[in-house]
Amino acid sequence: MKAVQYRAIGSRPEVVEIDRPDPAPGEVLLKVTASGLCHSDVFVMEMPEEAYTYGLPLTLGHEGAGVVEAVGEGVDPDLVGTSVAVYGPWGCGTCYRCAAGEENYCERATELGIAPPGLGSPGSMAEYMIVDSPRHLVPIGDLDPVQAAALTDAGLTPYHAIKPALPRLVPGSTAVVLGVGGLGHLGIQMIKELSGAQVVALDVTEDKLQLARDVGADHAIMSDDDAVQKVSELTGGRGADLVVDFAGAQATIDLGQQMLGVGGRFTLVGIAGGGPAAKVGFFQVPFESEFVVPYWGYRDELFEVLRLARQGRLTVHTEEFAIDDAPAAYDKLWDGTLRGRAVVRL
Amino acid sequence: MKAVQYRAIGSRPEVVEIDRPDPAPGEVLLKVTASGLCHSDVFVMEMPEEAYTYGLPLTLGHEGAGVVEAVGEGVDPDLVGTSVAVYGPWGCGTCYRCAAGEENYCERATELGIAPPGLGSPGSMAEYMIVDSPRHLVPIGDLDPVQAAALTDAGLTPYHAIKPALPRLVPGSTAVVLGVGGLGHLGIQMIKELSGAQVVALDVTEDKLQLARDVGADHAIMSDDDAVQKVSELTGGRGADLVVDFAGAQATIDLGQQMLGVGGRFTLVGIAGGGPAAKVGFFQVPFESEFVVPYWGYRDELFEVLRLARQGRLTVHTEEFAIDDAPAAYDKLWDGTLRGRAVVRL
Amino acid sequence: MKAVQYRAIGSRPEVVEIDRPDPAPGEVLLKVTASGLCHSDVFVMEMPEEAYTYGLPLTLGHEGAGVVEAVGEGVDPDLVGTSVAVYGPWGCGTCYRCAAGEENYCERATELGIAPPGLGSPGSMAEYMIVDSPRHLVPIGDLDPVQAAALTDAGLTPYHAIKPALPRLVPGSTAVVLGVGGLGHLGIQMIKELSGAQVVALDVTEDKLQLARDVGADHAIMSDDDAVQKVSELTGGRGADLVVDFAGAQATIDLGQQMLGVGGRFTLVGIAGGGPAAKVGFFQVPFESEFVVPYWGYRDELFEVLRLARQGRLTVHTEEFAIDDAPAAYDKLWDGTLRGRAVVRL
Amino acid sequence: MKAVQYRAIGSRPEVVEIDRPDPAPGEVLLKVTASGLCHSDVFVMEMPEEAYTYGLPLTLGHEGAGVVEAVGEGVDPDLVGTSVAVYGPWGCGTCYRCAAGEENYCERATELGIAPPGLGSPGSMAEYMIVDSPRHLVPIGDLDPVQAAALTDAGLTPYHAIKPALPRLVPGSTAVVLGVGGLGHLGIQMIKELSGAQVVALDVTEDKLQLARDVGADHAIMSDDDAVQKVSELTGGRGADLVVDFAGAQATIDLGQQMLGVGGRFTLVGIAGGGPAAKVGFFQVPFESEFVVPYWGYRDELFEVLRLARQGRLTVHTEEFAIDDAPAAYDKLWDGTLRGRAVVRL
Repeated sequence: MKAVQYRAIGSRPEVVEIDRPDPAPGEVLLKVTASGLCHSDVFVMEMPEEAYTYGLPLTLGHEGAGVVEAVGEGVDPDLVGTSVAVYGPWGCGTCYRCAAGEENYCERATELGIAPPGLGSPGSMAEYMIVDSPRHLVPIGDLDPVQAAALTDAGLTPYHAIKPALPRLVPGSTAVVLGVGGLGHLGIQMIKELSGAQVVALDVTEDKLQLARDVGADHAIMSDDDAVQKVSELTGGRGADLVVDFAGAQATIDLGQQMLGVGGRFTLVGIAGGGPAAKVGFFQVPFESEFVVPYWGYRDELFEVLRLARQGRLTVHTEEFAIDDAPAAYDKLWDGTLRGRAVVRL
Repeated sequence: MKAVQYRAIGSRPEVVEIDRPDPAPGEVLLKVTASGLCHSDVFVMEMPEEAYTYGLPLTLGHEGAGVVEAVGEGVDPDLVGTSVAVYGPWGCGTCYRCAAGEENYCERATELGIAPPGLGSPGSMAEYMIVDSPRHLVPIGDLDPVQAAALTDAGLTPYHAIKPALPRLVPGSTAVVLGVGGLGHLGIQMIKELSGAQVVALDVTEDKLQLARDVGADHAIMSDDDAVQKVSELTGGRGADLVVDFAGAQATIDLGQQMLGVGGRFTLVGIAGGGPAAKVGFFQVPFESEFVVPYWGYRDELFEVLRLARQGRLTVHTEEFAIDDAPAAYDKLWDGTLRGRAVVRL
Repeated sequence: MKAVQYRAIGSRPEVVEIDRPDPAPGEVLLKVTASGLCHSDVFVMEMPEEAYTYGLPLTLGHEGAGVVEAVGEGVDPDLVGTSVAVYGPWGCGTCYRCAAGEENYCERATELGIAPPGLGSPGSMAEYMIVDSPRHLVPIGDLDPVQAAALTDAGLTPYHAIKPALPRLVPGSTAVVLGVGGLGHLGIQMIKELSGAQVVALDVTEDKLQLARDVGADHAIMSDDDAVQKVSELTGGRGADLVVDFAGAQATIDLGQQMLGVGGRFTLVGIAGGGPAAKVGFFQVPFESEFVVPYWGYRDELFEVLRLARQGRLTVHTEEFAIDDAPAAYDKLWDGTLRGRAVVRL
Repeated sequence: MKAVQYRAIGSRPEVVEIDRPDPAPGEVLLKVTASGLCHSDVFVMEMPEEAYTYGLPLTLGHEGAGVVEAVGEGVDPDLVGTSVAVYGPWGCGTCYRCAAGEENYCERATELGIAPPGLGSPGSMAEYMIVDSPRHLVPIGDLDPVQAAALTDAGLTPYHAIKPALPRLVPGSTAVVLGVGGLGHLGIQMIKELSGAQVVALDVTEDKLQLARDVGADHAIMSDDDAVQKVSELTGGRGADLVVDFAGAQATIDLGQQMLGVGGRFTLVGIAGGGPAAKVGFFQVPFESEFVVPYWGYRDELFEVLRLARQGRLTVHTEEFAIDDAPAAYDKLWDGTLRGRAVVRL
């Protein structure tokens, strides 16, 4: 079968022919229908050899959808033929965190060598993939697999970042979204659909601001020197109740921090190198404001994201590619010339 | 000044001329701009003498809006001229519940003889009214006072009933609204604006179902023998996550109870005589479902309701009257011939 | 191996010799170390033939602890030798509820024919038992298996009933525990350890009241005609913030309902036939009070219960039996002559 | 009457004779029974002239208790004779935050020139004091006023800091308390009484560690190079679920940050100059951990703190002084030679 692999440190991904795997007991074999590309893939492929821990060759793809082709022993054979999305942050399934469906924070994944598909385990950027357990599958019904695949990370990550803030997003509140890209344009839709907050989106190009307006932002403003003042006016001087930073650069963190109000929540989602940080101390942040750095999402939350999409209340702007064009798609991701979330349709 | 009063047990309300009151220390005098009529007024005026405890004559009106005309000693004189809505469920302001803004559940109101305007204290159905403290006023800016007045009860009550259920109204969930009247048509809007739930509205006339659709219900179905089956289908057999019963008859309670799913919440808002009840026991209700009977709402919630309206996300369907026509409006309320919430504009 | 089975409708359980099972792919074989008896077992064994759905013969025991003896294909072999407790309310592991660890409310268990051990699947009242997945095991370290076994239901059920009420059990609040038996004496300990509430326990014998005091109840009072008045005095007239009814008779429900305060929560845990119910309607219950009927508990909650016990903050009063004496122990359960929770130690 | 005043920038407080005030409409006059000293007083008295905004002379004391001596017009005269504690973070009482009892975050206090007693308004360090509204009084019954006074800040502040973290302090969790001083020794008691967490206390002297143990800490360890490793061991490598930093120096912030686990909460309470800060960014803090800087507390929370004390579950270690010795007590506060919270008893 065809697979898109990262085969050597510093190289670009390539399409190769490898053997189709068989599901061991407890496992599931998917015929992949869609696989999304993500900035994290680039982040991983840019790692120097001494930091890289994902194994080589690495079949890419941690955003996957497919149809169950076969199941291993001990797995319900009625699953065969079901159209599913893949929950990516695999955990052990048995520890305290996993017992609550919080596999993204599995207490034992590192110790047991468990890694997400495409980030250690063979990923979805191939004609077939192994999913280690049926509990990592969510049925998608007639939802377009391209949408479903993108939602497993680009949808689940902002949803998980936003959901804990919903109780404070009462009518009259304000949410600021920094960065209207693959995740940001979904975050805007979620906040609008699920809360009483007005949404103020910031970015640095008019194209992105237009996208923000198209997906429902109440205000889309240029991320410049006047932005803090504008948000202050839009909030009656109270500041934002939620700031989600999808860029994660020091500049956006600093900006967002100034826009936050008393009792607000600042959620850092974008990884820009890993160095940038908010400074949380007296007289440096509004009282009772919370600063948090979440990662991916919970199992039950993926059901919720997919259901929101199935209701027609959440749509990913995608750019589709064939598997043979995946390397070219990665090039566009590197170059920043994509318009929408890149997804390979198989 | 003119006032609409209930003057004798069993009589109909009438317009009378009384003295304009002066604000005592700590009080506020409002020039009333709008005053809403409510089924509770009828409930009170139908009480037999031995049960009636609100005093006579009673100036009606517990849904009020106005402009501050004068303030008593100890009250900020800058308030004069401010357009406000009146928070109605007055409490003592100092007990544990009131300290949290939960004045509707004041621990000392009965003991201290504190009563809401129009339900013991002189109400808003007059040209001027006394509000006992500035803490019972919420500024409304340029919101139409007719809207604001109606929202102080017809808006606040469903908001308070729905808000605790919002965390369970995740994408994929279902809320059932029983009764699309003055409160129900606002409840539908709130659920749609503030949650990921699909809304199924039930009533007994096609007019009401059309109103439900107009304000955003995903499904509006006749409240008949097939209704339980239809809700089951619309929820994939899981049942509703929230049922709000704005009618409160035994028939609607029984119906709603059958529509509820595991872990759902049944909120009884409508008072139909006071006798009807849900029976909560093993094998009679879905596991982990909650049954609750709330009353009116909290102080901060009124800010939230009014802000939702000011954003244009919540609109009361009203039928306006002049104060001289208030008795006729009450007649229409009695007869059930109103279309929309009746509000007197002054 | 020996197993305690219910073999014919209307019979008493008996000790029989059956084959030791082998674990299929995905399963785990436990050498049982302890198995608790429960009123639910009696409830099941008293069912008439037309209602009974658990299969015959039925190996009893839904409260189990053991040591992993062997694992099926696809299960981590490092589990062998681990001392564990068994999470009993088995679900499918893949639906929305199961994704959140809420397997007690699995959406597909009935459809798929999944049943808890001892309540459809072969239970823990045997020398060995099959657990269908390692996710249903919680390591117990050096906790006494007799304690651990009892806690899987007699501990988990009250914990799950109480945990949602903890946020309202602030300092100054009151929790009423109706029935100081196998579950009630654990509920008292949990509320005292985990909240600021004072605990008032009620029962009908001085022995039970003494047990309540021994495990930390602030007040233990006879469940008689004066009880409502006493609770009113102990709460300064406000009523209880939580009532947990471990008896579940109509008499205790009625009593508890009268003791509840505004905004309180009434949780019905005891099943006394299934007919009794609270009547939830206007002027029949305090405003904003919630009535709920939960069932067993969540996966992560079992970790929490066992950890509380491992800290020495939760202790089950038990009466131990050998497996050969299990039928006699059931007789005592039937007769109501047990003192403490009955557990078979193997 | 006698009052302890700060009269000139850079001076030490002194006892002076001033006129006893009269309550204006809406106000309450207290005969003070106890008044606590606080590090914030020192913080204020050390401010340079250009930063100081509290007015001169300033009657000190933001921790007060007293008996109602007289009330202004518009206030219930039945209050006279009631023993009360004073809620200190006064707000306007009418804005959105104040409507919810969150007067410590009043949206209009600065604009309206409202300041807490002892921090702008005349404080409790005098024989009589004015409280601007009865809503800022909480009845204390027979609780010792010295205890009550200290609890209005030294109790309310840690309570408010800890309460939002209680839901994560399930059995098996760990709370780390940094600094066992006036607030810290109360924080330890609160966590132990209200949650299932084990408490690990850190400080730099054996005296303080002994105090921690005396008030219930499960572990009290020296704040040195081994401390992070010890907390790791005590948490099974998972890290703490709550860190409350009552010192607030950069060194304690850094230490606490290293002790935190995934999903934990870091609450900064101690102000050590205002400069220190936690750096919250990717790979610098555990995922999903929250960093927050709260301030004082809510109105209803003061009721809860005082009720916990009245139950005998919370005790302040105090050192008492006469009002004439208040300047000497402040000297001891400056010198760090106090043992316990300093309170003037009148």
